[in-house]
Amino acid sequence: VALPDGFAALVGRAGVRTGAGNDVALLWSTTPASSAAMFTRNRFAGPSVSVSRARAASGRARGVVVIAGNANVATGPRGLADAYRLGSLAARVSGLGEEEMLVASTGVIGRPYPMDVLETWFDRSSRQERTSDACELARAMMTTDTVPKVADRQAGAARVVGVAKGVGMIEPDMATMLAFVATDAAIEPAPLERLWRRCVDDTFNCLSVDGDTSTSDTAAVFANGAAGPVAEGALAAAVREVCLDLTLQLARDGEGATKLLTVAVTGARDRSQARRVAKAVLNSPLVKTAVHGGDPNWGRVAMAVGTCADEDIDPDRVTIRFGELETYPDVPDAHRLATLAEVMAADQVEIGIDLGIAGGEATVWGCDLSAEYVRINADYTT
Amino acid sequence: VALPDGFAALVGRAGVRTGAGNDVALLWSTTPASSAAMFTRNRFAGPSVSVSRARAASGRARGVVVIAGNANVATGPRGLADAYRLGSLAARVSGLGEEEMLVASTGVIGRPYPMDVLETWFDRSSRQERTSDACELARAMMTTDTVPKVADRQAGAARVVGVAKGVGMIEPDMATMLAFVATDAAIEPAPLERLWRRCVDDTFNCLSVDGDTSTSDTAAVFANGAAGPVAEGALAAAVREVCLDLTLQLARDGEGATKLLTVAVTGARDRSQARRVAKAVLNSPLVKTAVHGGDPNWGRVAMAVGTCADEDIDPDRVTIRFGELETYPDVPDAHRLATLAEVMAADQVEIGIDLGIAGGEATVWGCDLSAEYVRINADYTT
Repeated sequence: VALPDGFAALVGRAGVRTGAGNDVALLWSTTPASSAAMFTRNRFAGPSVSVSRARAASGRARGVVVIAGNANVATGPRGLADAYRLGSLAARVSGLGEEEMLVASTGVIGRPYPMDVLETWFDRSSRQERTSDACELARAMMTTDTVPKVADRQAGAARVVGVAKGVGMIEPDMATMLAFVATDAAIEPAPLERLWRRCVDDTFNCLSVDGDTSTSDTAAVFANGAAGPVAEGALAAAVREVCLDLTLQLARDGEGATKLLTVAVTGARDRSQARRVAKAVLNSPLVKTAVHGGDPNWGRVAMAVGTCADEDIDPDRVTIRFGELETYPDVPDAHRLATLAEVMAADQVEIGIDLGIAGGEATVWGCDLSAEYVRINADYTT
Repeated sequence: VALPDGFAALVGRAGVRTGAGNDVALLWSTTPASSAAMFTRNRFAGPSVSVSRARAASGRARGVVVIAGNANVATGPRGLADAYRLGSLAARVSGLGEEEMLVASTGVIGRPYPMDVLETWFDRSSRQERTSDACELARAMMTTDTVPKVADRQAGAARVVGVAKGVGMIEPDMATMLAFVATDAAIEPAPLERLWRRCVDDTFNCLSVDGDTSTSDTAAVFANGAAGPVAEGALAAAVREVCLDLTLQLARDGEGATKLLTVAVTGARDRSQARRVAKAVLNSPLVKTAVHGGDPNWGRVAMAVGTCADEDIDPDRVTIRFGELETYPDVPDAHRLATLAEVMAADQVEIGIDLGIAGGEATVWGCDLSAEYVRINADYTT
């Protein structure tokens, strides 16, 4: 997948992380661009997030540098200085102003960057090959991801290309999601910001692998206008589809995941209640292990819905389905149980819940909980 | 452990559940008593909870019947009728008024009681042996618990004896905790209610095996006054110690648990914030798997603290310790890492977090997350 017109990328291996593979990735627009970005709300957010948050506020950032293998989190004043220095190095090599360059980082925490190897790499990098291949870019951001995540759509004459990474745990130390979308559509910062906020809210913010919020989550969009203006609705739809595509790729590649799990809540008081109920079901370890074991255990779904403790959730009005098959209150007979077994054996399972209150709805995405998840996260010593 | 004076128990096997062991347990005071009870807030609470909640309101309930192997949840109008009938049968055999008898139930959901086998058992039960052994009572309440949970303390001339059950999943279908405390101290319902609410809040409500709230949780205390009045402070302390003891037993026997995990938060704005932060750490699958793997992964603890997103949580004022050893911000050297390895190898691990805000504090208890947890909960088909 090629980047949109006017975007460039640079990837390489500086030696930040042990193990093979690239660990530095840059993406930037070669011309001025609009942008919007959203970040983790975790109170232990790292200096990458604080530097980028300040720079993104103008709506005029047009590039990002990503370090894979070191989160630069909880590294004190030195970590902040290193984040600024990394931004300078990246800005110089890409010809951007420092204020135009975002910084993102993922990997182990509490360990400062090896600045010497980064300085060396950037010194040499002007003589290295640029790329316009989004897959190479996505691959250079990977840590314990098993596949690079790329998605692209067309919006009128413009293209929308996104890359993302994150599997729940990184290196394995932090649940970290990074997502970047580049488009050559022309759009001003203010409408881009609105569009992006809504899009992230409907896609990445509806994703949960393990219920833990990373200290480094960053999602940014850059629009450089190389393809001229396009209808805002078409652009919003294309950006949303790219982000949804990446969200599903992230869910499928969740640590230890064997199944994509979708939870769709309808009939809620409002969207906020719908999402809260959906997340309660998605994050319940009892539901996740049941899905892993191929068990249409609607009792656990009911329990998870009930934990929301909202006065207006009435068990007598709730219906629960797995795929298209209702399991509560209309408990399935033997014939339908056999069909349910097939539904549960698939590599994607959708649980539907109607609360019977009003018209609020939300859909969220995640994965099952496997012994492999425990292995990945337990068999590791700091 | 003998029950306090004036309390009787009856246990036996009616055949409610498959597999061996008793499945019916009754505990009651042979004389009038004060009582207090607290129940799950889950919206899918079963008829046992609704019947018991209404009866407990008087403060004069003096007995409880427990069915192990069937939760009688989501069983519709029939389930409610069955709960009342079970209460009648239990009241008759123990000589209590119906309004004095609480009903509790734990096990699979969505399946009605086999009322025929229960009727038969109660018909015969008047000719069966009563017991005054609290261990027998605790054992008859077990489902997938691996050990019976009993604790007792002295409060002046009075005794306080408690029994509990629950391992996170039952049968395995529901996280269900039942706890009953009997004392021969004399105390009126109103002060007993206050004492019990505070006690449950500090003990059972600070326990979490998997973050899921059961549809059947019930905790009740009965005081029949056979030992006369005792100092309320001494009684409160003894009841609290019994409940804390049971809480730790429940945590240790959590599904798949290999370690007791204690999270103590100090320096919080208030107790509510302290408990919220402590629960976020206790329930984080990343923290739980790290503890399982013996990894003092303070980065994951920081991440979990940060998810609380309170404005007044400042990473620069937070300190994190494992056992007595600080790990953040004062990152351990190699020597202390070796000591930490010993701390983590123990069968109980305490994580301490000071938020540096004010004097609020809370301690919560749970367990690690093991592949065995996944196995128990995934290898099951409805």
